[in-house]
Amino acid sequence: MLGRLNHIAIAVPDLEAASNTYRSDLGADVSEPLPQPDHGVTVVFVTLPNTKIELITPLGDASPIRGFLDKNPSGGIHHMCYEVEDILAARDQLKARGLRVLGDGEPKIGAHGKPVLFLHPKDLFGTLVELEQA
Amino acid sequence: MLGRLNHIAIAVPDLEAASNTYRSDLGADVSEPLPQPDHGVTVVFVTLPNTKIELITPLGDASPIRGFLDKNPSGGIHHMCYEVEDILAARDQLKARGLRVLGDGEPKIGAHGKPVLFLHPKDLFGTLVELEQA
Repeated sequence: MLGRLNHIAIAVPDLEAASNTYRSDLGADVSEPLPQPDHGVTVVFVTLPNTKIELITPLGDASPIRGFLDKNPSGGIHHMCYEVEDILAARDQLKARGLRVLGDGEPKIGAHGKPVLFLHPKDLFGTLVELEQA
Repeated sequence: MLGRLNHIAIAVPDLEAASNTYRSDLGADVSEPLPQPDHGVTVVFVTLPNTKIELITPLGDASPIRGFLDKNPSGGIHHMCYEVEDILAARDQLKARGLRVLGDGEPKIGAHGKPVLFLHPKDLFGTLVELEQA
């Protein structure tokens, strides 16, 4: 079921500082900030040869990563995203095996314009996992 | 400087349970456990099309991930590893820019038989970053 690792998302308190570090210190290919009001974050994409890192910071008061940064004020790895060929088939298979899908279980359109779901971290060893239709 | 994302390491309290979840529930290509006494961990490799996940659990009393699991008993993402072409050049460039290299600053031979270094999480937004010579 699991396909490519689409991205790793790192929550950061200061997006400009994090962008500068990845661009100037680590010599990576770093995008301009992209506000995503529907998702409550502003994102910077770090393009690696085989996958990407997404540096995310809260946008708006109801940002879903605000609580994470309250607990981890320096930042930290927030989630990892795997691609799947068929997100509804993946969801049904995982639910049948007892894994919990967050929210109402219906895929939402994610930051890349494709359907996504999140799985419960307690079912996956403390890691928040996003599934994205490839 | 940054090359491929070599792997994401997830520390888990129960390697057999984690292997089963990735193999049977998530349908991934999962290796047998590989004890690495020199590194104080036992590792299972999850091979994805573009990178790999390493599920790691403590081996021995002095395991470097014991403290992490004490703080995160369910497990969690422990570190991420980027490849670099020349680890000594990378180290010197990063040190010159004020990033801290853990330990004595000399590369050690990592779990894949190649020189590795770790960077201080406080300089990288709460993420522990391993650099591995490609």
